[in-house]
Amino acid sequence: MSNRRRGFSHERDLAQKLWNHGFAVIRSPASGSKAKNILYPDIVAIYHGRVLAIEAKTVRKERTIYLKEQQVEKLIEFSRRAGGEAFVAVKIVGTGEWRFVSLNSLRETGGLKITKAHLCNSLKLEDVISIVKGVRKLDEFEKTE
Amino acid sequence: MSNRRRGFSHERDLAQKLWNHGFAVIRSPASGSKAKNILYPDIVAIYHGRVLAIEAKTVRKERTIYLKEQQVEKLIEFSRRAGGEAFVAVKIVGTGEWRFVSLNSLRETGGLKITKAHLCNSLKLEDVISIVKGVRKLDEFEKTE
Repeated sequence: MSNRRRGFSHERDLAQKLWNHGFAVIRSPASGSKAKNILYPDIVAIYHGRVLAIEAKTVRKERTIYLKEQQVEKLIEFSRRAGGEAFVAVKIVGTGEWRFVSLNSLRETGGLKITKAHLCNSLKLEDVISIVKGVRKLDEFEKTE
Repeated sequence: MSNRRRGFSHERDLAQKLWNHGFAVIRSPASGSKAKNILYPDIVAIYHGRVLAIEAKTVRKERTIYLKEQQVEKLIEFSRRAGGEAFVAVKIVGTGEWRFVSLNSLRETGGLKITKAHLCNSLKLEDVISIVKGVRKLDEFEKTE
């Protein structure tokens, strides 16, 4: 299986988990989309009007991650229009865990770099789900120290 | 060009128009999606927290349209989870116009049938855009008589 196809299967896995927890979820079409001006995040998950725009990444173990400027721009523009929150969801393949890093929390590192420490302290899938179903803003909750 | 491919190109056209009007828009992956439990509408368009779940259809001219039960179920379930509104967007190829029929307005006909009269009186794309950007609920505005 190619890296690209493996990436899609992880995205599907995350979409399925969010759906199982009651979110409305939609995955973007594979990059073959011909509407070139439209910026799709990998996944959009919505729960009762609360919109999460998500770019998904996969790493073997916790390490510093560099984002592409275009990926970040997609998230910013989509979530601005939608009135939503933007996240990079990182699957740590070694542990099978998903970690959620909010784009807002990346301001200190210029928006394009997730340090290993930040990743270690970021939200787990169950944190995101309980926060979205509750009343707190994700940003207030994020465990960045 | 096959009917299927033509359908996709109309969907892309609608997605692009909504994007150009400031919506966050995401199209569902082609039916090859392997996450079979997840119900994707053709298009999800979001404007500042207001979510529209859309199934797209194409007809040559205004006529009665029958929906598949599965299409309607997709819309209902997705919009229930998202806290959004569900629409069938019909492109009349003869005139090039898009018409928006809200699922709620189909209750009288059992939810699976759009009569020609209903279609003629349904919202145009510019109506939907101005309503969503304003304050009125689409249902209150719909021109069904």
